[in-house]
Amino acid sequence: MADKLGPALAEPVFDRLALVGLGLIGSSLARVARRMNLARSIVAIDASEEVRARVTELGIADLVTGDAAEGVRGADCVILCVPVGACGAVAEAMKPGLTPGAVVSDVGSVKTSVVEQVAPHLPDGVHFVPAHPVAGTEYSGPDAGFATLFLNRWCILTPVPDSETEAVAKVRAFWEGAGSNVEEMTAEHHDLVLAVTSHLPHLIAYNIVGTAADLETVTESEVIKFSAGGFRDFTRIAASDPTMWRDVFLHNKKAVLEMLGRFAEDLYALQRAIRWDDGQALYDHFSRTRAIRRGIIDLGQETAAPDFGRPKPEA
Amino acid sequence: MADKLGPALAEPVFDRLALVGLGLIGSSLARVARRMNLARSIVAIDASEEVRARVTELGIADLVTGDAAEGVRGADCVILCVPVGACGAVAEAMKPGLTPGAVVSDVGSVKTSVVEQVAPHLPDGVHFVPAHPVAGTEYSGPDAGFATLFLNRWCILTPVPDSETEAVAKVRAFWEGAGSNVEEMTAEHHDLVLAVTSHLPHLIAYNIVGTAADLETVTESEVIKFSAGGFRDFTRIAASDPTMWRDVFLHNKKAVLEMLGRFAEDLYALQRAIRWDDGQALYDHFSRTRAIRRGIIDLGQETAAPDFGRPKPEA
Repeated sequence: MADKLGPALAEPVFDRLALVGLGLIGSSLARVARRMNLARSIVAIDASEEVRARVTELGIADLVTGDAAEGVRGADCVILCVPVGACGAVAEAMKPGLTPGAVVSDVGSVKTSVVEQVAPHLPDGVHFVPAHPVAGTEYSGPDAGFATLFLNRWCILTPVPDSETEAVAKVRAFWEGAGSNVEEMTAEHHDLVLAVTSHLPHLIAYNIVGTAADLETVTESEVIKFSAGGFRDFTRIAASDPTMWRDVFLHNKKAVLEMLGRFAEDLYALQRAIRWDDGQALYDHFSRTRAIRRGIIDLGQETAAPDFGRPKPEA
Repeated sequence: MADKLGPALAEPVFDRLALVGLGLIGSSLARVARRMNLARSIVAIDASEEVRARVTELGIADLVTGDAAEGVRGADCVILCVPVGACGAVAEAMKPGLTPGAVVSDVGSVKTSVVEQVAPHLPDGVHFVPAHPVAGTEYSGPDAGFATLFLNRWCILTPVPDSETEAVAKVRAFWEGAGSNVEEMTAEHHDLVLAVTSHLPHLIAYNIVGTAADLETVTESEVIKFSAGGFRDFTRIAASDPTMWRDVFLHNKKAVLEMLGRFAEDLYALQRAIRWDDGQALYDHFSRTRAIRRGIIDLGQETAAPDFGRPKPEA
């Protein structure tokens, strides 16, 4: 498995790439698109004046604007990198500028809701190919991005029934150019898979960190001091962007509530085993989960090495 | 904060150190004790013939035996490095060999239960100083240990009412020599603090990995493939030693059940916020938890660096 980005493409996938939202993901895409020659020119669109100023300073885009319709004009690819809850409004705002034949994609952690929000605003002749790169860190903003964020990570495409084959192929080539492995599935299945591999873990992490902070008998400084016992593994993901995650839970409600129900049911079984001293049940459960970890390491989505295979800026 | 062990002590803290149980913790102690000159000689005691053979091959102890009473004879320090549930039986077995004036300690993740199990077996003139190094990895066995495991980690001492001051000072000097920061508290408070910073996180991690494995609609290979979305952070601790953790939960039952109750209550509040589209409640909760993460990084129990500050063998 390559641990570095390869040589840049000889021919860019897109002529003019417009990125809407220059946070962790958007600014990482700008960096890797330029580095790997994924697009001839890059337009950065962001509603925040502060973000625009920073993106200009960083020099990671060819054009920086706050006007979505203006920014997407002439772009043959537009990628929405905004919180899931903002996709509908952004699609509506950029509609007047969309060029026929353009590909519109996104990076949202929820797919059915994004399709429902965005599709109605897209004019005929504009191709919608929803996408979700399963990659991230607990940092936010244009300074947090880096070109190798997507390297060796999965990007899931959830084409809609009328996604044009050629448009899907281009989005796939774009993500492969960014170093990702690409998989396709339906939006509904995506939302179920991610509910368990990402949304539920985040909710639980957010929850336990809150529970710990509220204790009367144990101080917050004790919690922090002795976090090496396991707690700190949760704090990393509980430090993720609050707006992004609020939207994820509200927009993938059904699948998240289903997974939460199962999680709670299983937790009660373990709780009962503790209460009734059922050591065998605990031992059996704990032995089984070890094997799953092994699978993750074998698949290269994590390593046994000290940096745990997490994406990081190159040295 | 030093990231390497300093020079070895000019004068060892103990003359003869007996370690009972040569797993991850015991074998790490053997390595750091020799490296830092914490004891003049090291006796390794283990009930498993396989472990004894491996410890002999590794050459990390001066004497290797399966007989606890024989092994502790003449030792001025004995440290129990066995699962919490085995401490009573080990204390009973080694009793005939204990030398008056010796210090007995342990490394258990639960303290009140260890005190109850061990204290009754200790002859007069033997000093008991329970200890818990808050450090570990998800690997087990004598090969998993390394000398820097305890470097910059906390070691909590929970002296019993009749722990001799000099004995406590020696155990403190031993752990400081291993690179740890030492803190003292009561066994009861320790068990409460660790219930939230370590035991509850492990239980939840074990639980979610089990929940994910049981889904009918999402395959295990999908869970593994897309684990980078948050799930893998849980799998690391859900790969910890099953015997050790079974014992922890059975022996810290009261505090764990109390924390579990609070955790479940808080989780229901988040679940309800999702069900009723209360975005503000979610946003407020998620913002608060970010600050706690910052505290952990500031305190040096984790770093923002790619290896997340986890203990690792030296390069």
